Amino acid sequence: MRLATLRVADASSTGAGTGTGHRTVAVRIDDEVAVELGAPDVGALLADPGWRGRAATTDGPRHALADLAPHAWAPPVLRPSKVVCVGLNYRHHILEMGRELPIHPTLFAKYPEALIGPYDPIVLPAHAADAVDWEGEVAVVVGTRARRLDETAAREAIAGHAVLNDVTMRDYQYRTAQWLQGKTFEATTPFGPWLTVDDDGALAGELRTLVDDEQVQHTAVEDMVFGPAALVAYISQIVTLHPGDVIATGTPGGVGHARTPPRYLRPGHTLTTTVTGLGELRNAVVAEV
Amino acid sequence: MRLATLRVADASSTGAGTGTGHRTVAVRIDDEVAVELGAPDVGALLADPGWRGRAATTDGPRHALADLAPHAWAPPVLRPSKVVCVGLNYRHHILEMGRELPIHPTLFAKYPEALIGPYDPIVLPAHAADAVDWEGEVAVVVGTRARRLDETAAREAIAGHAVLNDVTMRDYQYRTAQWLQGKTFEATTPFGPWLTVDDDGALAGELRTLVDDEQVQHTAVEDMVFGPAALVAYISQIVTLHPGDVIATGTPGGVGHARTPPRYLRPGHTLTTTVTGLGELRNAVVAEV
Repeated sequence: MRLATLRVADASSTGAGTGTGHRTVAVRIDDEVAVELGAPDVGALLADPGWRGRAATTDGPRHALADLAPHAWAPPVLRPSKVVCVGLNYRHHILEMGRELPIHPTLFAKYPEALIGPYDPIVLPAHAADAVDWEGEVAVVVGTRARRLDETAAREAIAGHAVLNDVTMRDYQYRTAQWLQGKTFEATTPFGPWLTVDDDGALAGELRTLVDDEQVQHTAVEDMVFGPAALVAYISQIVTLHPGDVIATGTPGGVGHARTPPRYLRPGHTLTTTVTGLGELRNAVVAEV
Repeated sequence: MRLATLRVADASSTGAGTGTGHRTVAVRIDDEVAVELGAPDVGALLADPGWRGRAATTDGPRHALADLAPHAWAPPVLRPSKVVCVGLNYRHHILEMGRELPIHPTLFAKYPEALIGPYDPIVLPAHAADAVDWEGEVAVVVGTRARRLDETAAREAIAGHAVLNDVTMRDYQYRTAQWLQGKTFEATTPFGPWLTVDDDGALAGELRTLVDDEQVQHTAVEDMVFGPAALVAYISQIVTLHPGDVIATGTPGGVGHARTPPRYLRPGHTLTTTVTGLGELRNAVVAEV
């Protein structure tokens, strides 16, 4: 089952009211149509304990996928209560760098304002445009309250997976020892295109990042040191995870900053991030005007 | 003007409804009474662009401060959309450690679930009780949307200040290079007791942390490298700050982890954090049962 959040025209808000002229709505994707589910986004849907049944069976207004503009696709969860990011989580890449595998996951945060839709442009901020790098990742979306769970229970707490690119301002990331400021620039982290709900919580397949037509990152997602259930279990020992919370599970080798010479995103580039079975993000990189 | 959030008995929820038996309400503190302001917390009040006038003039149900139990005091903002923490921000302490003053603020995050009220107990998590340390701090509370502001405009965007103790699990903080996991343990960060609304955004006075009767931290708050307006301006270049967002401005020397031998919080301790003019946090440290 695939669940997404769409920005759709809102007849009731074309007047002097909200001014946006659109609303958002959670949808189930059935082949070539998106079926509205009566919640403003997938996050609100997941907050309903009966979300699985409701998502599977609700019928509502339909939108042909072929008619949707790229901008119609919003981040599946518009404002997760938290986004937890993981560093150094791909075995092969850690070993090839000559490091030992970590005992504990490296965790850092991203504020929800960083998220954009799966096909939204990445606007390079004028004052932070020089060292913007890609980090293709699998995102885990939490489906139920998770507090001090073991791995078995943690697996049950996962709603499913999506694709995310933890786009990073390397200059800001390394201004100090703490990465947050390079990781949380407003509206720079594509997320989506939809939440793929797993029946068994299993995650397999390949993650690929492309800049224009060149593949710059490629890994089997099973190569993670800490898989989705292990991450949910670990984080839940520290803080409560809520429905809709997002865990960005880390990126493999191939980022631009580690190349000689370093390579970064520039206006005119297209950044593509795909995970087998989870779909594709496709984001034009543009200069701020 | 002092604004707080109280947990008060809720006659309408004593049945089978919410089950909590209490509601929260924003109040203005007038001498010996708290006057209800008709918002569920100070965060909701600040979201109203007319909050200053509303807070100053609203009359509502009153609570004598002398009748309030310690647990009646909630964090002034119950769930800020973000808590931004600052590291290494006291000049004297940085210089005495032989370091150079930083050019950029060190920023890291704390999730809102970490916050507790000003007199709530700090419950040492059973699996993370061994290295729990104090970090007395001044908290800045944002009063209006702040995006790419200069320092002058940033000063206007500050609603006021409060006291916060960035209680830290040092073992988790240093498990990896990123501090988040040691900083965001559920329900361990006291915040309050109220928001002191400044007319001029100026911050002066002394910060003190005590463990039982022993003073363990003491500094003039003017010794900050990056003051409140500079921090709001800096962060606002990266991400939008919203009304109710909290910036924890960093701690001076005197933390337990840096002592020889190290000292940590133990059950039976009382942690007291005070800032001249902003009030006092007083938290019993207890073991998890």
